[in-house]
Parts: sequence; structure tokens; C-alpha cells
Amino acid sequence: MRVYLAGPEVFLPDALEVAAAKKRVCAAHGLEGVFPLDPPPAAPPAEMPYWMRIYLGNEAHIRSCQALIANLTPFRGPSADVGTVYELGFMRALGRPVAGYSTAAADFLARTRGFLGAAARPRADGGFEDAESMGLEDFGLGDNLMIDGGIAAAGGAFERHDAAGDRWRDLAAFERCCARIARG
Amino acid sequence: MRVYLAGPEVFLPDALEVAAAKKRVCAAHGLEGVFPLDPPPAAPPAEMPYWMRIYLGNEAHIRSCQALIANLTPFRGPSADVGTVYELGFMRALGRPVAGYSTAAADFLARTRGFLGAAARPRADGGFEDAESMGLEDFGLGDNLMIDGGIAAAGGAFERHDAAGDRWRDLAAFERCCARIARG
Repeated sequence: MRVYLAGPEVFLPDALEVAAAKKRVCAAHGLEGVFPLDPPPAAPPAEMPYWMRIYLGNEAHIRSCQALIANLTPFRGPSADVGTVYELGFMRALGRPVAGYSTAAADFLARTRGFLGAAARPRADGGFEDAESMGLEDFGLGDNLMIDGGIAAAGGAFERHDAAGDRWRDLAAFERCCARIARG
Repeated sequence: MRVYLAGPEVFLPDALEVAAAKKRVCAAHGLEGVFPLDPPPAAPPAEMPYWMRIYLGNEAHIRSCQALIANLTPFRGPSADVGTVYELGFMRALGRPVAGYSTAAADFLARTRGFLGAAARPRADGGFEDAESMGLEDFGLGDNLMIDGGIAAAGGAFERHDAAGDRWRDLAAFERCCARIARG
């Protein structure tokens, strides 16, 4: 089974080494990990802008895979990387299994309050809002409910676990996702 | 044509008033705007958790619509709201038209540098990276390339325009999306 490995690790200087480590974990569970930087199934037209070729290559990768595992570790804010989340929604709409994980165990409300600091203020109804009076989600979830909901609707799990060491290279929660996808 | 109105306005205290204003713009272009908080086509099972019922309602809304317009205005960080981005990826995978807009005109690199401040540092290759050595995208786009790429692949546009007044209630860029979707 081919599994697309969505996540912001593509931005790391040693992205290919991280990809290789994730692929080894996949292989130990009988899965073939497909990393966004792998050569796509069909090369997009060379006259397209570089970024559009990357986009089309990733879309083709996702369509070629039978499942997706998303690294939803918070990225430059309280939520996951938006590129990863786009790919998660895309795969859910294709009706295939998805799983997600984060190397931060805290729930979304706690993380958002931490991000906003003093700008997070209590509402009369017991919830919280930001400086623009926009409410904070408080469902005990890992991220925005569309993320947790999409994973649940697809029968997957959102594995959260505080990283031991480097948060982009701790693969314990990722491995739990692999085991779950392999069980089917 | 039914158009799903994805965006973080659901978190505003006057979300229903903002929804009504967006629906009026849709109607002026011959479109029927569908807001996430509208009653879903079919009520999810009452025994499900509240957040899961919201998720399934939104998914049903998206499947019932022929197009999607995403409010991609930066939300608690340099990127768009992840719930909105999930929905954008979902609709793109369904193969239907999508459009996006933001009431912040600056490109993604400038916004990410602004968000990171002194933590954004130059790389030897001329680009920038953050404090974890993760690269910053620099393609002159509105957000992560998966967002701009998905909209472009679907034949849509990402309209960016600095808000005059309140950034959640300026509908000029939204109206350009409506006009484009209505033209087909």
C-alpha cells in the first residue's frame, strides 16, 4: 500500500534524510511511503512555473496513493501547516484512509491560548475569544474541528504525543499511524 | 449555482450578519451562497459529539455545492485558517471550481517574515529560514503553494486586496470571486 507522507518536513534542510527515516518506519509496517519531494508519477509540463509543477506533482502523488498520514505538528502558529491540511482534505474527499499525528500533546484551546497570550480573553458564556472577538474552539481536539472531524470520518486517528527531543524528528506518533493504516 | 462560503467568519460574534452580507453579494451575481452555519442538507446522528456533527454538516454542505469561495485572509499566523484550507482541498479533489481571496495584499514571504520577526534569517542561497532552519516559501504567492496551486489547477483566482476598514467585513475581493465563479 502506497501512503502519502504529508507534512512540513519538506522545509527542513535535511528533508530527504527525514523522508528516508519515515520510509523505513513505513516499510517495517509493510507500507510504501511516498514523500512530496519524490519524483512525481508524471512530470508536469516544463513551461509551467516551478511552484505549479510542485503543486501538480503533489496532487499526482496523492491520487497515486491509497492512504495519507499527515504531520499536524503546529507550524508557525497554533495550527498545523496549511499545505499539509490542504492535502488531508483532498485525500478525505477521495474517500481513502487518512491518519494524523502531532508531536505536541496539548489540545487546540490550550495551544491557541498560549499563542494569543494576553489577547485571549474570557467571554460571558465561559469560552474565550481573541482581540477581534473571534471565538476559540474548545472541543478538546488536536486542531480545528475540520481536521479532527475529517480524520474521524475516514476512520483514522489523530495521534498526539509530546516529542522526546527534536519535534520534527520524533517518529513515535508517526509509527502509531503507520501501524493503524497497515491494520486497515 | 450553490457556492460554499468557506472562511473563519464562523468565529465572529455576528457571524450570521456577515453570512447574510456575503449571501447578498452572491445573489447579486446569480449565486446561492451556502454558509457553514446553515442547517445541513441532512442532520447528522444526534448521538454524535457536537463537533463531529458540525464536521459532517460542513462536509455535506460542500458536497451539495457546485463551487467554493474561500476566505484565505491570514488567521492567527501568516497563513489562512486551517479549517478553510481543509475545505478548499476537499472541494478541489471533488473537481469543482474554487476561488479564494484575502483582505491582506502582501505576499506570503513578506507576511511570514513579519510573523517571525528576528527569527527569520537569511540562508546562504539567498532565501530565508526560521529558527528551526525550516525554509520560507518565496514564490510571490498568496500563501503556501498548495493553496495557490489548487486554486490555479481548478481554473480559479486568488484575489488579494488590502481591506478598507474591518478585515473580516470588507467584501471587495470576495465580490471579485463571485463575479468570476458566476462567469463559469
